[in-house]
Amino acid sequence: MPRKVSIPPKRPVYPSPAVLITSVDAQGKPNIITLGEVFNLSIVQPVIVGIAIAKPRYSYELIRESGEFVVNIPHAGMVQKVDQCGCVSGRDVDKFAAFELTALPAEHVKPPLIAECPINIECRVLGIEEIGDHDLFKGEVVAQHVDESLLDTHGRIQIADLNPLNFILGEYWSIGQRLGHHGYTRHR
Amino acid sequence: MPRKVSIPPKRPVYPSPAVLITSVDAQGKPNIITLGEVFNLSIVQPVIVGIAIAKPRYSYELIRESGEFVVNIPHAGMVQKVDQCGCVSGRDVDKFAAFELTALPAEHVKPPLIAECPINIECRVLGIEEIGDHDLFKGEVVAQHVDESLLDTHGRIQIADLNPLNFILGEYWSIGQRLGHHGYTRHR
Repeated sequence: MPRKVSIPPKRPVYPSPAVLITSVDAQGKPNIITLGEVFNLSIVQPVIVGIAIAKPRYSYELIRESGEFVVNIPHAGMVQKVDQCGCVSGRDVDKFAAFELTALPAEHVKPPLIAECPINIECRVLGIEEIGDHDLFKGEVVAQHVDESLLDTHGRIQIADLNPLNFILGEYWSIGQRLGHHGYTRHR
Repeated sequence: MPRKVSIPPKRPVYPSPAVLITSVDAQGKPNIITLGEVFNLSIVQPVIVGIAIAKPRYSYELIRESGEFVVNIPHAGMVQKVDQCGCVSGRDVDKFAAFELTALPAEHVKPPLIAECPINIECRVLGIEEIGDHDLFKGEVVAQHVDESLLDTHGRIQIADLNPLNFILGEYWSIGQRLGHHGYTRHR
């Protein structure tokens, strides 16, 4: 067995998705933040996602005030725009204009969908909770939009075509090979 | 722009990690559960991770009673054992014995580390919260152990060598190519 050593933890769980979160200010002007800490809290009934945001972020106040956000899942080819959106503040820069991203109206919430992202998840904030150095926003999912070209004939998302982006210890990674599906070892 | 269609959401955020969580019963007998819903809640000070578990799971009661768990990050080569641990209940099967996994004593908590997993994160439960169809366990990280062979000369984890496992819409995937690091577009 390899020797184990202890090292100080920092953001120790991964892979996480690298996604773009949209929000709006009181005038309806949209903003984008790149987040790695985005996850499922309740899977099916109801569908609730969590996002962890630090208080100083501009998107923190926008989402707290409006009570709405959209999770936009980029494909790996968008890594440059994902990084750019994560390197400047919406207080200073209109990220849609600066990084050539297209805002589409959402169905149920004020923050827009990012057209270039193949998946867009509309959320309404159920609650905000302080947990250490970030706050957890719980968002009920009220709609999900998917690029039609990603769906197979059964309406299932084709993961290889989606090509989502991972965030791992400060680095962006693509996905590699499909290794199996949940339960595959039962059916051999 | 591709046409968007609306589809019902289900576990809509990914990639997530596929990890093995260890726990113990009142007699100290260890169990393992495979989870995809494992994430960072507080990044640096303090380091807090979240795991979402459904109430019927055996690990739910073990972790609730003992107040401790360990997050074991497998490498992609362990996908078969990861799936096997996700297909049976610890009420019926000793998963360490059945799937040939090795329990190592942890430093600060009773649940063991899984020796075969290159990263092991010891956690103490800070609180449990009902959120829809799962409960969120918040765990303060009290130690992190890493296979020494994964560290470079600066003590940093080598991600390609770690080769962590993704869980995406019910499928296991390896990681692919490194596409950049956070901030890389600033320095070109």
